[in-house]
Amino acid sequence: MDLALAEARAAAERGEVPVGAVLVIDGEAVARAGNRTRELSDVTAHAEILVIRQAAETLGAERLSEADLYVTLEPCTMCAGAISFARIRRLYYGAEDPKGGGVAHGARFYAQPTCHHAPEVYSGLAETDASEILRGFFRARR
Amino acid sequence: MDLALAEARAAAERGEVPVGAVLVIDGEAVARAGNRTRELSDVTAHAEILVIRQAAETLGAERLSEADLYVTLEPCTMCAGAISFARIRRLYYGAEDPKGGGVAHGARFYAQPTCHHAPEVYSGLAETDASEILRGFFRARR
Repeated sequence: MDLALAEARAAAERGEVPVGAVLVIDGEAVARAGNRTRELSDVTAHAEILVIRQAAETLGAERLSEADLYVTLEPCTMCAGAISFARIRRLYYGAEDPKGGGVAHGARFYAQPTCHHAPEVYSGLAETDASEILRGFFRARR
Repeated sequence: MDLALAEARAAAERGEVPVGAVLVIDGEAVARAGNRTRELSDVTAHAEILVIRQAAETLGAERLSEADLYVTLEPCTMCAGAISFARIRRLYYGAEDPKGGGVAHGARFYAQPTCHHAPEVYSGLAETDASEILRGFFRARR
């Protein structure tokens, strides 16, 4: 999760909403990214989507069923879907996102009958740090 | 929707689940794509995501608030999220997807409090053709 927090901080420095993600297989970080939606002019360039695409390209495999994903914020509905499609094994996230989350809030995708693979979900990891990075970013922008 | 159906048929010929999408601004098709998840080894390469990314790149804009999206199948949860983030104005889709849809089924994302932009939704366009392309594809694979 420390790597994910570092990616979130780096995203903040680039002027992006500071969310970071790391994909781990067998204890190795195979992909890491921060949010790049502004830089890439791409609403789909959330940290989670970027690491899933990076890892799939690196490994030449669509499905990442041995992979665990660490992300600093509760994934949104879009990312919750991508995580399911990628067959990710475990999802660890930091801060809750009552306004935009799709795991523990709103769509609660993994509890839907239209969800055909749900990762094991662990929330609250490094929650204080993850929240503080987001709060600091939005405070500085006001 | 004819262009979207053509993209779906082309996807089937490439061995991809046949879904096609077209993004229209001011009556002009600014982006069109079929599903390419297998070809790209990328679970996020649904037709909808591809046209949103294409259009954003072409137009140099993250948000596509003047755009209407035509897609042959009800968007999944991931795509429903991306469509919302891209601020797409109207969504027209063909076949319903009770097993995997995220608009009229399952997550029903546009009805969630965590959804901050919902397109106008029109379903059932060319539903028979759109369904038949999908049915024919899965029949041939069995």
